Amino acid sequence: MGLELATYLVRSGILATSDHTSVVSINLFVALLCACIVIGHLLEETKWMNESITALFLGLFTGVVILLTTQGKSSHILVFSEDLFFIYLLPPIIFNAGFQVKKKQFFRNFMTITLFGAVGTLISFFTISFGAIWLFKRMDIGDLDIGDMLAIGAIFSATDSVCTLQVLNQDETPLLYSLVFGEGVVNDATSVVLFNALRNFDLVHIESSALFKFVLNFFYLFVSSTFLGVFAGLLSAYIIKKLYFGRHSTDREVALMMLMAYLSYMLAELLDLSGILTVFFCGIVMSHYTWHNVTESSRVTTKHAFATLSFIAETFLFLYVGMDALDIEKWTLASDSPANSVGVSAILVSLVLVGRAAFVFPLSFLSNLTKRSPDEKISFRQQIIIWWAGLMRGAVSIALAYNKFTSSGHTQLRGNAIMITSTITVVLFSTVVFGLMTKPLINLLLPAHRHSSDNNSEPSTPKSLIAPLLSSLNGSDLEIADHPLNRPSSIRLLLTKPAKTVHFYWRKFDNAIMRPIFGGRGFTPFVPGSPIEQSVHGGD
Amino acid sequence: MGLELATYLVRSGILATSDHTSVVSINLFVALLCACIVIGHLLEETKWMNESITALFLGLFTGVVILLTTQGKSSHILVFSEDLFFIYLLPPIIFNAGFQVKKKQFFRNFMTITLFGAVGTLISFFTISFGAIWLFKRMDIGDLDIGDMLAIGAIFSATDSVCTLQVLNQDETPLLYSLVFGEGVVNDATSVVLFNALRNFDLVHIESSALFKFVLNFFYLFVSSTFLGVFAGLLSAYIIKKLYFGRHSTDREVALMMLMAYLSYMLAELLDLSGILTVFFCGIVMSHYTWHNVTESSRVTTKHAFATLSFIAETFLFLYVGMDALDIEKWTLASDSPANSVGVSAILVSLVLVGRAAFVFPLSFLSNLTKRSPDEKISFRQQIIIWWAGLMRGAVSIALAYNKFTSSGHTQLRGNAIMITSTITVVLFSTVVFGLMTKPLINLLLPAHRHSSDNNSEPSTPKSLIAPLLSSLNGSDLEIADHPLNRPSSIRLLLTKPAKTVHFYWRKFDNAIMRPIFGGRGFTPFVPGSPIEQSVHGGD
Repeated sequence: MGLELATYLVRSGILATSDHTSVVSINLFVALLCACIVIGHLLEETKWMNESITALFLGLFTGVVILLTTQGKSSHILVFSEDLFFIYLLPPIIFNAGFQVKKKQFFRNFMTITLFGAVGTLISFFTISFGAIWLFKRMDIGDLDIGDMLAIGAIFSATDSVCTLQVLNQDETPLLYSLVFGEGVVNDATSVVLFNALRNFDLVHIESSALFKFVLNFFYLFVSSTFLGVFAGLLSAYIIKKLYFGRHSTDREVALMMLMAYLSYMLAELLDLSGILTVFFCGIVMSHYTWHNVTESSRVTTKHAFATLSFIAETFLFLYVGMDALDIEKWTLASDSPANSVGVSAILVSLVLVGRAAFVFPLSFLSNLTKRSPDEKISFRQQIIIWWAGLMRGAVSIALAYNKFTSSGHTQLRGNAIMITSTITVVLFSTVVFGLMTKPLINLLLPAHRHSSDNNSEPSTPKSLIAPLLSSLNGSDLEIADHPLNRPSSIRLLLTKPAKTVHFYWRKFDNAIMRPIFGGRGFTPFVPGSPIEQSVHGGD
Repeated sequence: MGLELATYLVRSGILATSDHTSVVSINLFVALLCACIVIGHLLEETKWMNESITALFLGLFTGVVILLTTQGKSSHILVFSEDLFFIYLLPPIIFNAGFQVKKKQFFRNFMTITLFGAVGTLISFFTISFGAIWLFKRMDIGDLDIGDMLAIGAIFSATDSVCTLQVLNQDETPLLYSLVFGEGVVNDATSVVLFNALRNFDLVHIESSALFKFVLNFFYLFVSSTFLGVFAGLLSAYIIKKLYFGRHSTDREVALMMLMAYLSYMLAELLDLSGILTVFFCGIVMSHYTWHNVTESSRVTTKHAFATLSFIAETFLFLYVGMDALDIEKWTLASDSPANSVGVSAILVSLVLVGRAAFVFPLSFLSNLTKRSPDEKISFRQQIIIWWAGLMRGAVSIALAYNKFTSSGHTQLRGNAIMITSTITVVLFSTVVFGLMTKPLINLLLPAHRHSSDNNSEPSTPKSLIAPLLSSLNGSDLEIADHPLNRPSSIRLLLTKPAKTVHFYWRKFDNAIMRPIFGGRGFTPFVPGSPIEQSVHGGD
């Protein structure tokens, strides 16, 4: 399949990079990216727009312009390529998310996140699949079997974690951000397992052993992916700490961090694990250990360089989805029954809405049962936001849909064409409509006590004694380390007045064993400063 | 050709990225890059080795391992791809070189650099071409016509500017560095013109008008490429200054600088200009204007991120050349006459040596005639180093050779196969032997007065009055701006006690017109600091 796909890509001008066409398309894309940045900056003041929607619209607009100038022959310069997405665009985005995530918040809600991501995705999958089977059989939408229907369930259960990053704000609504984004990461692993499991499934003889195998497979995937990511992160920390990289060059440290993170992702892909989970945990470990072992310049550089790469990849992705949406071939094939297409898209959007509601509210209820203090519980208003903010479907859905319903980039069957166009419609609709409405919805539901609701997510009752200390340890390490003076005192205070939580025991273990080996805040090796650094900075 | 090439690449597994093979090869390459960084770091102490030669050896070693494990079937995982080289690897390397270059040194020697790069390359081209015509006609090396011989001249006139960066040290030998590296950049433009001109040349009817056309074409290329690069750099400076990007996000600034630099390169390629010249001047302008308009974090980030990207690209390149060197197909085709192959390679190395000597010494003599003070002249010892340090042939030669002597990646004719293997041999030999011997040679020729020779290159006689001021303005802006306190006073002093040179008038023009518009040292706009920045850094 890879070969056929590539041959097609060559024919359509993507991979023949020496070709004039591809130089043109690279120019166009880079110019559009620049335009997105400038326009996104100018629109920053408005509350509704964000960079992704700007990119989406700019992509659509460019698609229309190309469509008109080529007289309807082609609207896209690049056909959507799964590889471009999974190998180049996704890793920097997810790695950066792990690198900049507020770790404490994430780990405090770890159980809820896993519940939402794993069980929730399964509930959503079954809801959408059975809904599709039940609703689509009355419609004339070509030849789709039960396998296709289940695949539809998997495709539309995959939320768009990238879009979440843009819509929710980590500083304004940390609990919601960590829940929805964390769920998105786990969701991704679940979707991959689901989708691959469905491929190998014997749909005629479904046995209970298969279900057991599936659950086992999921656990294996989750644990081994996480382990790989943690291992890669710790290895990078150990190498940089032991070899005193900063002594010679800052660039080498940054390069090593980048390459090892990417290596962890690609290794996971090679071993058929979830690269997304791996690189996410690699980012977390790197920000916790490795980042503290490098020179000051490397810290600033990695923090911003990773964010920049992620930012470019995100913008590119939305631009790309926008431009790809107008691909003529699929639309002409599906256009002989426009009513059907609209109907299918509407049904799918409704199923997405229902499927998500079917797990967010029950699982929030379950999660609330385990929490004692009312402040730790997820309020109904917050549940609505969680439901709403995860409705967006994005590039993962498109990639899976292409994988399922096209063979080597072409859509021959009408049923398949309708599914592809519907996927694009759902993605565009959900990103634009749901995306645009998230910010106003948050302002509406959490208006006056927007900031107090943030504090709710912080430990205000049982650990109120050490709340002021924790607040300085609360964010990601990246933020705090910019105030190096705060560090020693807060660590000392934390050690003298500990709170007996799981997190406390972890921190004790971390300080006693992990940090002395792998470095980290307060345990950075003595780096005499690279000779170049010193001559440049006058010794820092 | 692009299509055929791509089809071939697909067959050989490069572009079918979804393929299992390519995931393996990405893993292998990234792992090897990590190994190169660690080994290169450990070998830093030794004077002889550098990262490029480590990468070359590691590439060769890996090639051997693959050759043995696949039982001689294939030694390479990626076939050398011109596009990978010209579209992805070269731009960051050359941009970073422009971004970090000591501008004053570069512009002071501008005439000499242009003389070496343009006239010198032509002399080298004619020497190698006629030498090859004269020597190869006695040998049995298949069917090579006069066009092939001239192409050989162009291929082996292209010096390896990347390798120069690694072998010479900008801080230790600034004059030599700027001469050899600057020559390399201009040389590149000349090689491209030469190579393209030869393709379109009617070799039977060579007229004087064609020569005139060639000269005209070269000037057009040089001026328009430079203009495009300067324009892109100024545009980025203007946009960032006018829109106060720092107000919202550091990442946006960094992304915009990266993307605009890359856009300038790709635009130059689109317009058939020399992308290398363009991106080099774009780097210079960006470091002179744009870099001063961004936030402090962006400055640190761009400085190190560009260096890191360039470092990764360089290392990858050498790894790649090393691995590609063992491609079986070419060697089996050429191996029926091993004596011939060795002979051809030896002749080519000698021609490279002679061809470079034929212009370095005469042109240095010419250049010295225009200099009055003995300290500004290029000493004979320095001439030897210039001659020696520019002997390395690298990826540009390989790319041109592949372009000329293979059709869609395959070498059918024996003569062509011999030329390809000889090119690889010359590249490996020159990089390893000449590369390894450059540092010892410099230590030998400029031993005690190594540092005084540096001072020779500085203005010690006519401008000795302002020498202490200039010394602080002498390096690249990037270095000085780390001492912000030096800035205002040195600028003021320079304005009150000017030296009447071209550089003085430029600086006057720069201060009066350019900097107020485009920003730059001392003319940065008031950036209130992005809200995020402030909360993180506590206000900088």
